[in-house]
Order: sequence, then structure tokens, then C-alpha cells
Amino acid sequence: MSTAQETAGGDAHPWAEVTPDAARRLLVAAVEAFAERGYHATTTRDIAGRAGMSPAALYIHYKTKEELLHRISRIGHEKALEILRTAARREGSATERLADAVSSFVRWHARGRTTARVVQYELDSLGPDARAEILALRRLVDAEVRAVVEEGVAAGEFDVPDVRGTTLAVLSLCIDVARWFNVEGPRTPEEVGALYADLVLRMVGARPDAARE
Amino acid sequence: MSTAQETAGGDAHPWAEVTPDAARRLLVAAVEAFAERGYHATTTRDIAGRAGMSPAALYIHYKTKEELLHRISRIGHEKALEILRTAARREGSATERLADAVSSFVRWHARGRTTARVVQYELDSLGPDARAEILALRRLVDAEVRAVVEEGVAAGEFDVPDVRGTTLAVLSLCIDVARWFNVEGPRTPEEVGALYADLVLRMVGARPDAARE
Repeated sequence: MSTAQETAGGDAHPWAEVTPDAARRLLVAAVEAFAERGYHATTTRDIAGRAGMSPAALYIHYKTKEELLHRISRIGHEKALEILRTAARREGSATERLADAVSSFVRWHARGRTTARVVQYELDSLGPDARAEILALRRLVDAEVRAVVEEGVAAGEFDVPDVRGTTLAVLSLCIDVARWFNVEGPRTPEEVGALYADLVLRMVGARPDAARE
Repeated sequence: MSTAQETAGGDAHPWAEVTPDAARRLLVAAVEAFAERGYHATTTRDIAGRAGMSPAALYIHYKTKEELLHRISRIGHEKALEILRTAARREGSATERLADAVSSFVRWHARGRTTARVVQYELDSLGPDARAEILALRRLVDAEVRAVVEEGVAAGEFDVPDVRGTTLAVLSLCIDVARWFNVEGPRTPEEVGALYADLVLRMVGARPDAARE
């Protein structure tokens, strides 16, 4: 149900790279079906039907249901990595970059929550090779955030006794926005992003003036 | 797969109240089946088979598959409320009580992650009445944590510009432990609980000495 709103909200970007149009429509249909009924309860026939296509037309683009999930998960993780990398590597203090990374990542999870839920909750439904590829992408995501935290500690901006654990908690906090965010709730994605950037700076003991001292 | 480990870890408490034994075995089997395949891909026949029972024997205890999910979700939420209420209402400063609430809640989500995932990810699979009942329990859970945060602010222990948003973030951080926690990972539930208590005290700007000033 929320996929239509996500598209209306202009956050269907991750799928823009999928061509031709039929392959993209099938991916969007698969996200909707997996979100509503779960991966195991969804058939390729269901997905083709949602996309207004025949099962035979689906097989031109995807050999199996798992290939659809794998593609969705890979695109989702690549986009996550791109968002965090852009924020983490821009100009500015570690404080500014961490705040930017968190607010961007939160906004993306709030707007694309249907896709994010499928990607997160169905990870165990992937086969071993696809799962290994996705886990490698997750380690890169983790490394981007950890690098900013480490840079902040080195610069005297942050006070973090457990960098690995804190990085994990920061990412977890952002990802879980996809579980609870409600478009009919009182907060916009932008408001949650701003609140969470502030909370994360508190988690790392940020002293915003330290970078300029 | 991890349910056996959870039981071995002594964290099958939530089901201890379910009697008779056959009804309890069916609930445990339902949690395992829903976690592995999703609610919609699981039949009452699958659940009965896992419990070593016939479908007819299942119907003596549960009229529908939804009744099983509802029972699992209600017991899970009642236990969550009990854990938070016990920590939030004990003797001690708001700082001590919030740290205790977070570490207990995190340990419980790490140990009972299979159940927690089913409860969280299949909420939308409940019918309207069951869902309304569970959402009412969630509001009580939220209110317990919010009360401690408000007490800490009133006592001058905490500095929290957005009490509602911060409470939501604290609960979200704890709940998401069920998604990522790995028994083969480097941290025990106790270690994650201790780390998260520290991170949450940072989120609320705790000044532990304020209570004694």
C-alpha cells in the first residue's frame, strides 16, 4: 500500500537504473508482494500478475523469484552505501559529516520503508552466494560510518569508548525507522532525520566546537 | 533454528504461562514456522506437524492461525511491558532506572530474537481487533519509558528537547537488537545491554551526579 505513496513522494530513485521498463515494473511489483505477504508466500505468478504481465514475460527478465529478491536487495544496499559515502566523504568536520550521514540515511529509510523492510526482513531468504554478496555490501556500509566516527575521535570531536559497537547502534537506529515510520504519523522524514542526527551526536559525545579549537 | 538456542539459554519464560503442554508446544512451533517462512506461507498443518501433532489436535487449542499469532504477540508485548515496568518503577534515580530498563529490554530482545522478529514483522498480519489490542499494549510500553525520561528531566538529571521522539528512538534502538543480534557474534546479550544503557544515557544527556546535587 505504501509503495504508491513512496513513488508519489519521488523516492522511487533506486529503481530508475533498472531497464527496460518491464524489468522495473516487475521489481516494483515484487517489492509490493513481498512486503504484503512475505517472500515465501509470493509466487512469480503473483508478481507477474501485479505487473500486468504473464509469467512467461517475467522469465524473460528474471529466472527465479530469488533473482528478484537478490536484485532488490543489491540495489537497496548499493543505494545505502552511496548515500552514506556521499555524506561521510564530503568537506566538513566529522560532526557535520556524521549528522549529514544520519539525517540522509533516516530520510531514505522513512521514504523507502516498504523496500527497506523487504531488504532487511528477507535477508535469510537469499541463497548462500547472494547472501554473501549482500553481507559484503553491509560491511562497506558499516565501514563508511565507522571511519567518520574514528575521524571524530582522532580529531578530539567525539568521545567514543566502543567505536564498533557505537557504529552498529547508529546504523541500527537509522534502519529501524523503516519498521516504525508511519506516513500518517506526526513527523515528516525530514523531522525524524534532524532529531536522529542530534541523538547520534549525543551518542558519540560530540563537542561541535572541538574541530575549531 | 535459534529457538532451540533460546530455550537452551533459559529464555523460554514467556511461554511458561501457556498451558496445557500441548498448547505451549504449538505456540513454540508456530514461532519457529513464522520466523522461517513468514506468517502467510505457514499453514496450521505445518505448525501441527512441527509440534508432532495432528491438525485436529491443533484445533482443540487454537481456532485459527491468526489466533496463534495473536497469542504470541500478546504474550510478547505483556512480557515487554512487565520488564520495562519493573525497571522503570523500582527505587533509584531516573538515570539508574533508565539504564536498567534499557539493559533488561536489550538482553530480552537478544535472547528472544526469533519471537521478537515474528511479533514485530507480522504485526500487519493481525486482524483489526487483535491489532488494536496490541497497539494499546505498545502505547503502555512507550508510556513507561517516557515517564522515566520525564522524571529525569524534572529532576534535572536529563536534558531532552524532544521527549516523545527520544523515547521512540530509545525503544526502536532496543527492539532492533532482535534483527541484528547474532549468537555467533562477538558480543553477549549482557555486553550489548551494557553498551546500549550507556548510549541511551548519552541520548538523554544524563548527568549522573545531578540526582545527588
